[in-house]
Amino acid sequence: MTATVYGVGLGPGDPELISVKADRLIRGAGVVAYFHKAGRSSNARAIAAGLLRADVVEIGMDYPVTTEIAFCDPAYNDALRGFYDGCVARLLTHVQQGRDVIVLCEGDPFLYGSFMHLHTRLTGRVPVVVVPGIPGMAGCWTATGTPITWGDDVLTVLPATLDEATLADRMGRADALVIMKVGKNMPKVRRALAAAGLVGRAFYVERGTMPGERVVRLADKPDDDAPYFSMVLVPGEGRRP
Amino acid sequence: MTATVYGVGLGPGDPELISVKADRLIRGAGVVAYFHKAGRSSNARAIAAGLLRADVVEIGMDYPVTTEIAFCDPAYNDALRGFYDGCVARLLTHVQQGRDVIVLCEGDPFLYGSFMHLHTRLTGRVPVVVVPGIPGMAGCWTATGTPITWGDDVLTVLPATLDEATLADRMGRADALVIMKVGKNMPKVRRALAAAGLVGRAFYVERGTMPGERVVRLADKPDDDAPYFSMVLVPGEGRRP
Repeated sequence: MTATVYGVGLGPGDPELISVKADRLIRGAGVVAYFHKAGRSSNARAIAAGLLRADVVEIGMDYPVTTEIAFCDPAYNDALRGFYDGCVARLLTHVQQGRDVIVLCEGDPFLYGSFMHLHTRLTGRVPVVVVPGIPGMAGCWTATGTPITWGDDVLTVLPATLDEATLADRMGRADALVIMKVGKNMPKVRRALAAAGLVGRAFYVERGTMPGERVVRLADKPDDDAPYFSMVLVPGEGRRP
Repeated sequence: MTATVYGVGLGPGDPELISVKADRLIRGAGVVAYFHKAGRSSNARAIAAGLLRADVVEIGMDYPVTTEIAFCDPAYNDALRGFYDGCVARLLTHVQQGRDVIVLCEGDPFLYGSFMHLHTRLTGRVPVVVVPGIPGMAGCWTATGTPITWGDDVLTVLPATLDEATLADRMGRADALVIMKVGKNMPKVRRALAAAGLVGRAFYVERGTMPGERVVRLADKPDDDAPYFSMVLVPGEGRRP
């Protein structure tokens, strides 16, 4: 009896933006798993909460570190490697007893998603199926009311975790920009956008498609406070008839 | 009585990858509109076909030109401008009589979508609501079985319609790549990838998530034939614990 691990994209946050396929899989799930920050509830679980069976078995996978250790510190990779190995062992316990496991993933599983670290460890050992989701960035550019790319525009998606000089260089070459993982990197993002001359074209989006959604022109945002669910976007200005 | 135009993303092609919200709107729709190439059936309509009411009113919007005139020829813009103006007039006839219109959009409406040309003309005249969809590229990277971005990878989305030197330059700076609108640009895309040293890392995906889906390493694809529904992807190789 072979069971399957499903990595299921939940989309940007609005529960109605879950795909019909993900909706079907989650409603039928006997075991679900999701990541969350230690001591915090899971955002992924919150998006899917209305679909979970009353008798569902839940596997909470709480990150040992998020931003407490710098990415470049070998201790960061060590801590996460052990964490992901442990998560995989927990999922395999269920799969080897014939129970499918649905891993709930915010956005799209293959776009900067934690699920990828499970996927790479599970592939070749048990069947793994990935269900794409609407990326968080698509929820955010829709929230701005402005198309993100026109005609021949090149779209550049930048993690705000990059250093400031790299960010400014990439921004300066971009037609259209999405800046992910903003959070506490907001002051650096604003300085890099200023260096690239793009502050005037940028939108700041907080909690896109979720309750408390907030969309402002970056130039009108007086502070650099930015929660986890925030992005900065610069729409393209390409060819349009 | 004010009615609304909805631009509804249908996702990459698999009808089960439509969002729950889009599914609900399309099942309830009295009037739907969709683009198609003259003399061809509409891909968007095909994705949504199973959801349409028996008595739905359909507005087919057939492009006057697609690739018959070069983008840089002013006649191209002139032809399309008149076409989109005419489409808007047809939609407004329904809206002004109190009937909502659901525009069926492949992928995500705001990412290189024709709907944007209606959106920009309708905004401020009638209520317009955009429902994001899973972009075609997310369906394609899922089909490769390989995550597209890890850690600090920068994702670059390139229209294959760009000139070869620009493509090669952008490819050479990329961590992860999605090349859209491949079709007859395939020979140029392959040459530019070769110049950037990326052919060995590239996947070719045809009809991602649809019947007839085909995924091959680009290096294993013997010809440069590529239909409209095809993309080339280069997954990132960034940080992973």
